[in-house]
Amino acid sequence: MLNVGVIGFGYWGPNLARNFNQSNDTHLAMIADFSASRLALAKRIYAGVRTVVDPYELIRARDVDAVAVAVPVRFHYELAKAALEAGKHVWLEKPMADSAARCEELIELAERANRVLLVDHTFLYTGAVRKMKSVIDAGELGDIWYFDSVRINLGLFQHDVNVVWDLAPHDLSIMHFLLNRTPKSLTAVGAAHTGNGIEDMAYLNLDFGDNLVANIHVNWLAPVKIRHTIVGGSRKMLVYNDLEAVEKIRIYDTGINIGHDDLEDRRRTLIQYRTGDMLAPLVPNTEALATEAAHFAECVAENKRPISDGKAGWNVVRILEACEQSLKAGGQRVTLA
Amino acid sequence: MLNVGVIGFGYWGPNLARNFNQSNDTHLAMIADFSASRLALAKRIYAGVRTVVDPYELIRARDVDAVAVAVPVRFHYELAKAALEAGKHVWLEKPMADSAARCEELIELAERANRVLLVDHTFLYTGAVRKMKSVIDAGELGDIWYFDSVRINLGLFQHDVNVVWDLAPHDLSIMHFLLNRTPKSLTAVGAAHTGNGIEDMAYLNLDFGDNLVANIHVNWLAPVKIRHTIVGGSRKMLVYNDLEAVEKIRIYDTGINIGHDDLEDRRRTLIQYRTGDMLAPLVPNTEALATEAAHFAECVAENKRPISDGKAGWNVVRILEACEQSLKAGGQRVTLA
Amino acid sequence: MLNVGVIGFGYWGPNLARNFNQSNDTHLAMIADFSASRLALAKRIYAGVRTVVDPYELIRARDVDAVAVAVPVRFHYELAKAALEAGKHVWLEKPMADSAARCEELIELAERANRVLLVDHTFLYTGAVRKMKSVIDAGELGDIWYFDSVRINLGLFQHDVNVVWDLAPHDLSIMHFLLNRTPKSLTAVGAAHTGNGIEDMAYLNLDFGDNLVANIHVNWLAPVKIRHTIVGGSRKMLVYNDLEAVEKIRIYDTGINIGHDDLEDRRRTLIQYRTGDMLAPLVPNTEALATEAAHFAECVAENKRPISDGKAGWNVVRILEACEQSLKAGGQRVTLA
Amino acid sequence: MLNVGVIGFGYWGPNLARNFNQSNDTHLAMIADFSASRLALAKRIYAGVRTVVDPYELIRARDVDAVAVAVPVRFHYELAKAALEAGKHVWLEKPMADSAARCEELIELAERANRVLLVDHTFLYTGAVRKMKSVIDAGELGDIWYFDSVRINLGLFQHDVNVVWDLAPHDLSIMHFLLNRTPKSLTAVGAAHTGNGIEDMAYLNLDFGDNLVANIHVNWLAPVKIRHTIVGGSRKMLVYNDLEAVEKIRIYDTGINIGHDDLEDRRRTLIQYRTGDMLAPLVPNTEALATEAAHFAECVAENKRPISDGKAGWNVVRILEACEQSLKAGGQRVTLA
Repeated sequence: MLNVGVIGFGYWGPNLARNFNQSNDTHLAMIADFSASRLALAKRIYAGVRTVVDPYELIRARDVDAVAVAVPVRFHYELAKAALEAGKHVWLEKPMADSAARCEELIELAERANRVLLVDHTFLYTGAVRKMKSVIDAGELGDIWYFDSVRINLGLFQHDVNVVWDLAPHDLSIMHFLLNRTPKSLTAVGAAHTGNGIEDMAYLNLDFGDNLVANIHVNWLAPVKIRHTIVGGSRKMLVYNDLEAVEKIRIYDTGINIGHDDLEDRRRTLIQYRTGDMLAPLVPNTEALATEAAHFAECVAENKRPISDGKAGWNVVRILEACEQSLKAGGQRVTLA
Repeated sequence: MLNVGVIGFGYWGPNLARNFNQSNDTHLAMIADFSASRLALAKRIYAGVRTVVDPYELIRARDVDAVAVAVPVRFHYELAKAALEAGKHVWLEKPMADSAARCEELIELAERANRVLLVDHTFLYTGAVRKMKSVIDAGELGDIWYFDSVRINLGLFQHDVNVVWDLAPHDLSIMHFLLNRTPKSLTAVGAAHTGNGIEDMAYLNLDFGDNLVANIHVNWLAPVKIRHTIVGGSRKMLVYNDLEAVEKIRIYDTGINIGHDDLEDRRRTLIQYRTGDMLAPLVPNTEALATEAAHFAECVAENKRPISDGKAGWNVVRILEACEQSLKAGGQRVTLA
Repeated sequence: MLNVGVIGFGYWGPNLARNFNQSNDTHLAMIADFSASRLALAKRIYAGVRTVVDPYELIRARDVDAVAVAVPVRFHYELAKAALEAGKHVWLEKPMADSAARCEELIELAERANRVLLVDHTFLYTGAVRKMKSVIDAGELGDIWYFDSVRINLGLFQHDVNVVWDLAPHDLSIMHFLLNRTPKSLTAVGAAHTGNGIEDMAYLNLDFGDNLVANIHVNWLAPVKIRHTIVGGSRKMLVYNDLEAVEKIRIYDTGINIGHDDLEDRRRTLIQYRTGDMLAPLVPNTEALATEAAHFAECVAENKRPISDGKAGWNVVRILEACEQSLKAGGQRVTLA
Repeated sequence: MLNVGVIGFGYWGPNLARNFNQSNDTHLAMIADFSASRLALAKRIYAGVRTVVDPYELIRARDVDAVAVAVPVRFHYELAKAALEAGKHVWLEKPMADSAARCEELIELAERANRVLLVDHTFLYTGAVRKMKSVIDAGELGDIWYFDSVRINLGLFQHDVNVVWDLAPHDLSIMHFLLNRTPKSLTAVGAAHTGNGIEDMAYLNLDFGDNLVANIHVNWLAPVKIRHTIVGGSRKMLVYNDLEAVEKIRIYDTGINIGHDDLEDRRRTLIQYRTGDMLAPLVPNTEALATEAAHFAECVAENKRPISDGKAGWNVVRILEACEQSLKAGGQRVTLA
């Protein structure tokens, strides 16, 4: 039984608290938040749980084995560092930190301290993404040609990060998990409409140096909520619609056949449609955070590396940094090291 | 009654022929096509209509007042030029020609000959686009912040033009009609997967030098058909889904309110959601080509300029040219004159 | 080449005319309609086709081999009878006639005259219904447990027939084609809201004397258009949504498992869910009337019985008669002979 | 602060417990369940809450002011009776009891004891149903012509009640709340496929003695989940789709116009379509149970009668009884007292 303390009881923290409380493998030991009214709410829901204002008190607490950090990204590094140094395991919200350099520091620190560092890329623990992973790994889609993701809605406007840092970590972490590929370069264009210079919509385009391209549209200014990802392959194609209640994944036996028309014109490529059946495989409908909490406890118990480890977190953050650079340069291409 | 000859009885030509035949204002006089089997089909459907192989025979025919050109874009200039020089009115498929320079020539020629030159931007004649136009012109959306359009499906692969030249004219002509704005610069990124170097997917991003941005995603390699356009405004937002049978347009009384939090932090902008009702206005469901055919006849009869005139055609083609330039330069920003 | 004359150029007749005109196997020879303006329209579209006011002139015409009757149901019997007696093959709109007795007469007459009599149950010629038929015939669904069909929209109000006679023939003909079963009894309830006593909504419930039941909801007063049929089976279930552009049929590997809980309570049946993948098989997207026109010509050429023959038409009409009887008796159960 | 004890921690009880725990107005004091594993789960989630096996221990507990009963319907009467006799307020799951007579007894008992008796017709507390109520009460729909509701899915099979008792209470309580009308008679047809004689699908048809009819389709054997209600009126029509995330209610400015064609035929009624805009009003997205818990506490504090009181519960049960009677008689019409 892993004793977990949760720092931050704002938007996402209550979901963490609820899952750590309900899981067989974890125990919700403590909650920290700066806001008195949020702590009162936490107290009402979790009568037996200790609440504190000072996160460092939670980090130091003897009966806390692991610290979950659910506060704005600019505090991630500091709190995670303190927790690791205090010998705690760490669960860190996405994006992992506000710079790739700080991600690297945290990874190193966790390794030295021999502590588990999990970055909360929640979607990796959904039945849908796991099913997609198994479909892709089995080669069903053939060569992957593109990854196109639209994640838009009327958004929670934030003061410290733009829409790319807020929403794109989901798509980037899913993409990396599914494809296990590293982009060579990228461009990012966006716009800010509220007068504070913080982009509220952006389009990212990642180039992988071969046939594969990825495009991500994130937007806080959309009147409708869309969560729609297409993974196009040479054999089949897959659509992932996270807003569908049941059929979140659809696999299309569809694509093109490339031949060569040798008789009429040798230079000409013959391209023909191919459409076939569509299959919506059964996707288990368990709550991702419940799976992730159990996974976290298991990694601690067995000294394993989480699926969404520091490396995965770093991978996302360094792309976010490059996007920021391209955004500020009007969409100029940025090469990734 | 306008006597129309149709050149090209392949994919789109039959739709033109059917509408010119059924309209009260036009008469289908003649059909030209290189293919004997297509001519035989035309003959079977239109028993009374003359068919010819040579398009120039049609252009020269005494009993033809207007020539509709529905052949690949590389032949547009030549055929339209010959028709105008023969004193015929011209209906030209989109995109208008394969270069902006040639569009300019045709515009000048039509003016000198005092003939009607219509570019078939079909969508401008749909009830949906006309409704959107009236909503926007009435100021219902406030300042327009963005235009985002997705036009993807498993596509008719073409040998001479890429997906941008094939599909983007629809979005560009709709956008220009609705917003009546000229972009200052653009970037275009794309990918070709079939080995012939012809892009089968692309993302265009247009910058208008102020708050307005536009993004267009066109794709021949998508397993699902999507026709989804969002027009985001400062007061309301609009979604146009052309695949909906009835409710093609939805107007969302939704957006953000920008205030200033003077007490706690003067530099901080307060941004709050606003969500309200959604209205799907009644949209007349007449066939666009029927409306367009009547409009063409009316322009000829009254010596008027069509809604989709040569200028509208040129405007699309010069953007396509700039996209091509950016595409070939790996997404580099291209400034429009 | 079968020479066809079409009687009635109102709502449905133009679709027949278009298909007989375009088909390789049929020739549109003549059109009859009482309305001068409809005949003028027919003349404009089909320059070479003869038009007449008097349907009997068409029936007698030497160059007409087959007569298609697309007029209100109360005229079906008379016109079909005259056509058969004149030695013509007959294509009859649905429902076949206004009484089962008259259907029987027509069947006998066609047999005696050795002429083809096709009832236009159009849906039987769609790719979707044919696919469903092959799935069911292959036993994929197991025992059929129920057929539930909803066919509602804001309807074409008619003066001589109610919504049951107007819409239910589609569902009844599809059901009979798919299941090949005859109901033992039925109940029908409905309501009339317009003051003329003609039901504008109704619910039919058919009992087959065993596990199978069928329910059909038809409605002219619905604000939304729904065409949704479920075929529930002991092994799998199927949903047919005719308004889907592509995935009209979905097969669900879903249902219940019935076991017996011997330990705790021997009288208790253990019923458990079973959910699995969903498959949307590829359905060819050809126009049903084109297939049906070719089938009609083939039946004439080879002296074959159509899929939708007089027997199929009679089967629908006798159920409609029984529904009428139940409707008028406030939903009382009516036994079918 | 109302101290609530929850009897039953199976399928629905946990939702009650969570809401009584989180609400500002109620306190979750105690949980009773026969199952040791369910009690252990309750203990893990609610560390501070007392758990017992014996429901009567909970009913007798001094620190429990109100008892929420979330167990199978056959136990409702007994437990509610004991609770009322012990001076507790009662929250009773739907359907209220297994007979109308027993509902009447409980109503009387609550009145004598001056205790609040709430029947958990959860939907009455949703933003969607409240919005519908206000639209209908304002007369926007005109005269109500029909209520058609489809509530189907692959269901939780139950051993003691059929699908009518399980699912129809939702539709019946919503209908009664919205229309405030009492049916005169009804018919119900159904089928049982699992060998235990318990109907797994049914169609109810309620007649109100005038223009209004209602039809309810409930089904445990459906491969897809549908929650779709149409309220058809003489002026406008409304569709309520509870599975929509946002636009749960759509109001259609659509219908028919009834005129009289005096010239051509005086006996003939002229009926014409009317289609207009569709409006999806903003619907607050609060959890119904949270609203209901606060309402329950308020009724206790202010000695008020709940919206979903015993009378509302009785009204549903007496219709269920009549349905049962009709079902067993093969769909014969049953008159309501």
